[in-house]
Amino acid sequence: MDRSFAFDRRRLLTALGGAVAAAALPATARGAVPGGAKAGLRVVVIGAGIAGLAAARDLEKAGVEVVLLEANDRVGGRAWTVRGGDRISHLDQDDQTVGFSPGLYLNVGPARIPSHHDQYLGLARELGVPLEVLVNSSRSNFVGGGAGPGGAGRVRLRQVGNDLRGHLAALLETALRKGTLDQELSAPVREKLVAFLKSYGDLADDLSYRGSQRAGLAQVPGATIEQAIAVPPLTLDELLANPELAAVLFDENILMQPTMLQPVGGMDRLPVALAAALRSPPRLNAEVREIRRQGAGVRVVYRDRKTGLGQAVEADRAIITTPLPILARTPNDFSRATKAAIAGVRYSDSLKIGFESTPFWEAEQIYGGISFVGGDTNLVWYPSGNFQAKRAVLLAAYSSRESAQRLSTRPRAEQIAIARAAVDRLHPGHGSDLSAPVLVHWGKVPFAEGPWIEWADPGNDARAAATLNAGDGPFLFAGSHLSAYSGHWQEGGILSARRAAALALQPRT
Amino acid sequence: MDRSFAFDRRRLLTALGGAVAAAALPATARGAVPGGAKAGLRVVVIGAGIAGLAAARDLEKAGVEVVLLEANDRVGGRAWTVRGGDRISHLDQDDQTVGFSPGLYLNVGPARIPSHHDQYLGLARELGVPLEVLVNSSRSNFVGGGAGPGGAGRVRLRQVGNDLRGHLAALLETALRKGTLDQELSAPVREKLVAFLKSYGDLADDLSYRGSQRAGLAQVPGATIEQAIAVPPLTLDELLANPELAAVLFDENILMQPTMLQPVGGMDRLPVALAAALRSPPRLNAEVREIRRQGAGVRVVYRDRKTGLGQAVEADRAIITTPLPILARTPNDFSRATKAAIAGVRYSDSLKIGFESTPFWEAEQIYGGISFVGGDTNLVWYPSGNFQAKRAVLLAAYSSRESAQRLSTRPRAEQIAIARAAVDRLHPGHGSDLSAPVLVHWGKVPFAEGPWIEWADPGNDARAAATLNAGDGPFLFAGSHLSAYSGHWQEGGILSARRAAALALQPRT
Repeated sequence: MDRSFAFDRRRLLTALGGAVAAAALPATARGAVPGGAKAGLRVVVIGAGIAGLAAARDLEKAGVEVVLLEANDRVGGRAWTVRGGDRISHLDQDDQTVGFSPGLYLNVGPARIPSHHDQYLGLARELGVPLEVLVNSSRSNFVGGGAGPGGAGRVRLRQVGNDLRGHLAALLETALRKGTLDQELSAPVREKLVAFLKSYGDLADDLSYRGSQRAGLAQVPGATIEQAIAVPPLTLDELLANPELAAVLFDENILMQPTMLQPVGGMDRLPVALAAALRSPPRLNAEVREIRRQGAGVRVVYRDRKTGLGQAVEADRAIITTPLPILARTPNDFSRATKAAIAGVRYSDSLKIGFESTPFWEAEQIYGGISFVGGDTNLVWYPSGNFQAKRAVLLAAYSSRESAQRLSTRPRAEQIAIARAAVDRLHPGHGSDLSAPVLVHWGKVPFAEGPWIEWADPGNDARAAATLNAGDGPFLFAGSHLSAYSGHWQEGGILSARRAAALALQPRT
Repeated sequence: MDRSFAFDRRRLLTALGGAVAAAALPATARGAVPGGAKAGLRVVVIGAGIAGLAAARDLEKAGVEVVLLEANDRVGGRAWTVRGGDRISHLDQDDQTVGFSPGLYLNVGPARIPSHHDQYLGLARELGVPLEVLVNSSRSNFVGGGAGPGGAGRVRLRQVGNDLRGHLAALLETALRKGTLDQELSAPVREKLVAFLKSYGDLADDLSYRGSQRAGLAQVPGATIEQAIAVPPLTLDELLANPELAAVLFDENILMQPTMLQPVGGMDRLPVALAAALRSPPRLNAEVREIRRQGAGVRVVYRDRKTGLGQAVEADRAIITTPLPILARTPNDFSRATKAAIAGVRYSDSLKIGFESTPFWEAEQIYGGISFVGGDTNLVWYPSGNFQAKRAVLLAAYSSRESAQRLSTRPRAEQIAIARAAVDRLHPGHGSDLSAPVLVHWGKVPFAEGPWIEWADPGNDARAAATLNAGDGPFLFAGSHLSAYSGHWQEGGILSARRAAALALQPRT
């Protein structure tokens, strides 16, 4: 999660846009591949994450013979769902075995689909992968980490949002009354606006803000006469002092709406369905060791991790979705410019820590969505379904960038203790309800080595993306890291993959 | 649905509060009934809606013998879910037979549970009734009825909310810059506030509002460089002219949050589970004809609607949840004051029209929640699950009060045509996708004769509620219409019922 995503993206796109305009890329098809069978054409696709799978699907639909190589023992890449008994490997640590009860799972990679992600949703529809509501934010949830006794210091999102709106509406009404905005607004608009501000801010009859039931109830209505009583309002000073105040805007981001979507049963359901729909199943445990030119085509050498035997695939073209740090050390015949583009990029980092638990948060009227706790653990995210069940999975930490880097330098047990303590501060007494910890540190996940690229980060140069998107002879590059979605979204991976598939079908020039 | 609910409630509570203070009611238990078996006590409960069922449950738990009478051939009352093959009767019209495909249903009464309704959620938990997310609002949905060609005149909720916030933040910043609020705010607060307003309104560097990606995307990010482009912003004049502008505040009502809850499979699942958990099953088709005093107790005469035979039940007390218009014409031995209280109340009205359809709205990136169309049909509400299925049920109209009264005077076919036309204006070309219409007009539903009471409406007197809540000898009254929730919420029905059950257990004075 990155609350400043929209802002970063804008900077990124400026960089990408300038770079790629210079590279003069061919126009890309959004989605569809050109019609007509391409019998005889053979394409090797490296990586069976969402991008590689989507590329393979489009190519097979166009009649191309596809060899899809996946280093892992499963498809999906970062679209990874862990369940009881699953093993989690990290490059720098012992394996973990997931201890969740049957039926429980955690999406340790992407976990939410916006309703405007037409590529992803279209694939789910085509493949019959059922979707359900994902609760991304809820005003019942908390802002602030509850550092004081009994959770003091935490406040419900609905109070922050509505007390803030109330104070700002009252201030604007004051300014209008003083005539300050007479130049900016005509008299009829001013009049309409004052009337609207009263309901917008839930202002009192004298147009001051004195609290609102929208901000929460200190007492709910009763069987007969017990009147609902609003929580006492926070002052504007108190609101502006909340270090997590930006949480009120979180779900205004079009990528972070209150309700989003998720595949029923786990984020890996779509990649699994994509793989099952391919004529040629992905070759799992196929760790690519060399990517070579062979005449006008390619030769990819891989090692079967089960047998230890080397294998080679020859093809007309390769679509390469390999994460760049791994690609940088894979012997290859790329051009100097391509090698430089790959070598120069640093990946961001992220980290998730989940636990099994009783759903104690339901006693606090929380049914899904995020509490914003700040600090290195950043958030607590409650499940969106299976309500009132005996056991549930709680995401106790989801950090990225500097927070993830800081956390991940500690021993794993310490990271887990920190996440547990953050939950206990927010929900006093419930840290001890958490069991079966699971920690995924994306920087150290084999065959991923990072969650995404922040192209706008210092040291990264978005021109590298343009170089890779331009292709290199028979080598085409794809993946969410190369799309304007900036690697955070599966939609970008699919868009990038379908573009690469369309390019692979074009005659070589 | 009543968007002005919070406001009305405040007026109501003032009225109720004054009246009941005068009536000097005993303190009420919230929820629990007094412990200890009440062997030998016998209570007749009239009505197996959520209130009657909850009262019967508490009484049985306390060891009381309960006879629960229900005039209908099903339990649940207004918590009514209709499915294919179900018959819908109205007092003034031919029966309808529901034409939905298997597996589809519509909640024609209450349809949403707020996460703070602890009574309702507690019963669901106790009885193992599974719950799921109900999407009440979504910023992907439309505000405005789309009266123009191609849906012109409709705008996404996210655009209204975010363009509005942007303009208001910019205006407030202007006022701050002009020094208008120097008296109201200290310099440090003003400085913090300006910084915050920039992100609050997504203002440009010069602190004007020029549109925001939060308001929606005219172009989504692409496979490589296609930058996201925000929709052009609406002006403040345009926003204030939108007759449905209040929709931006709809989900700030604590009873109308973006995500709420619903029983999996239909709102009738809780009443069905409550009935199944009773030792003495409800007597269905038992239409009460007389409510009499018999010594210190009661005698209730009913007609078995299946056999046509009369039956009588004697008991120590009666808990009466009968809707007041029906109770007013049931021969009874109530006191003058009770009779007057019952006779003086007028019920509100409401009306729902649903259709089966292909889920065409998903092509417009809508997955649940309400579009606010205005007019007499008021809203269009999309289903919260079963996404991307072939068939779904769309609520095409949900009106109350004057709108419902206006609509319901027309022939049924005309009402259905009006609802279809409203959907067609909002989603051009899709009116013809709607089939299997279902219309429920609560004012004419047998054994209900109205959806709720608006106590604050002219002609109603909230002192009548106080009179009924005070009881009348062996007669106790309960139901959502007597709670401070004002009849709109099942929570109020349960609270009222549990209070009545507790009173029924008290020794007579």
